[in-house]
Amino acid sequence: MKAVILLSGGLDSATALAIARHQGFDCHALSFRYGQRHTVELKAAQTVAGALGVVDHKIADIDLRLFGGSALTAELDVPKDRDEAAMGDAIPITYVPARNTIFLSFALAWAEVLACSDIFIGVNALDYSGYPDCRPEYIAAFETMANLATRAGVEGTTKITIHTPLIHMTKAEIIRTGLELGVDYGWTFSCYDPDDQDRPCGRCDACKLREKGFRELGLRDPLS
Amino acid sequence: MKAVILLSGGLDSATALAIARHQGFDCHALSFRYGQRHTVELKAAQTVAGALGVVDHKIADIDLRLFGGSALTAELDVPKDRDEAAMGDAIPITYVPARNTIFLSFALAWAEVLACSDIFIGVNALDYSGYPDCRPEYIAAFETMANLATRAGVEGTTKITIHTPLIHMTKAEIIRTGLELGVDYGWTFSCYDPDDQDRPCGRCDACKLREKGFRELGLRDPLS
Repeated sequence: MKAVILLSGGLDSATALAIARHQGFDCHALSFRYGQRHTVELKAAQTVAGALGVVDHKIADIDLRLFGGSALTAELDVPKDRDEAAMGDAIPITYVPARNTIFLSFALAWAEVLACSDIFIGVNALDYSGYPDCRPEYIAAFETMANLATRAGVEGTTKITIHTPLIHMTKAEIIRTGLELGVDYGWTFSCYDPDDQDRPCGRCDACKLREKGFRELGLRDPLS
Repeated sequence: MKAVILLSGGLDSATALAIARHQGFDCHALSFRYGQRHTVELKAAQTVAGALGVVDHKIADIDLRLFGGSALTAELDVPKDRDEAAMGDAIPITYVPARNTIFLSFALAWAEVLACSDIFIGVNALDYSGYPDCRPEYIAAFETMANLATRAGVEGTTKITIHTPLIHMTKAEIIRTGLELGVDYGWTFSCYDPDDQDRPCGRCDACKLREKGFRELGLRDPLS
């Protein structure tokens, strides 16, 4: 049974891939070169894909700098040193407009060509930055739409499922799950704003949430 | 008031743009270089955008040949000489998996950056090729999803509307409407499989539906 897995190269999507593999899926990983300033994550995605034995790994080129509007794709400062209360407070400037909708749409296209009805995305609605497109109600609405968008919907042959195995986990639970399934988090990369030598800044939301996860487990991040 | 208009360069989207302009929107046109064999439609899109006075026109590069699976993006034959009964019968090989979902997702991204809540797409569920992502129930589901995907959905500030002014029109009604609003259909291009000199084949679904529209109005297609 095939599945398409959205793979950023970060901690969450690596874990989602490990879970999909553990569930017996033949994994087709999909990453994006979307104009992100932290392209080092694509190297991490390739490492993760190789280490976890995917059947295929595609990188789609979609330059979202065309629209701008996010600190991840435009010359805006990535917020630093925010505590968790601040992260939950409002949608931050690192939010990329409609990014997960675009990513899931491409996954849907590939799934349809593969005649596969399972898509995995490592979104998380607990330890996260308050992005609207990480919430369960959003994912449910995407799934409904996806089933009307495609051959499957018209022909009634299969039902497309958007799997979000991490959505109700804390960052610590995600890391524990991944470790049990053989993920080495040294393969992954989370920072939004690495330095010239691709070292994590340690201060953006992504770094801080990652650090919190390892700390809660009493473990050391292999990247630190 | 701003709107994002999906503009392929074909007859339908040119008419949708004319309608949006007539309704008083400042129009932001969005086209895609997606690996289609009929790239001549992008020249038509530029002509239409210029002639109808859009505020901005962006062309996004997204190569869907990465996935294949359609006669429009892969080395498969475009069906010819199908009658209308055959068109309504099954989803043809010219269907590009999840294409409208991808296009609308990009439109959603741009709309969010523009702080605009109106998106126009020239889909049509009467004289069409039976694509699942042209049906009203699909568009409604996309709109619901879009309102959960974005800042607007979380902050409750605006409601995103997907406008489909052509959805219940015949091809003849679309052409009549466009002519009333000043569209010159000589600007547009519909054929899926033009020859080396970018002349319409006259035999694919897109050509045949277009010809039917002009014939029903007793008019001659300026492209013929």
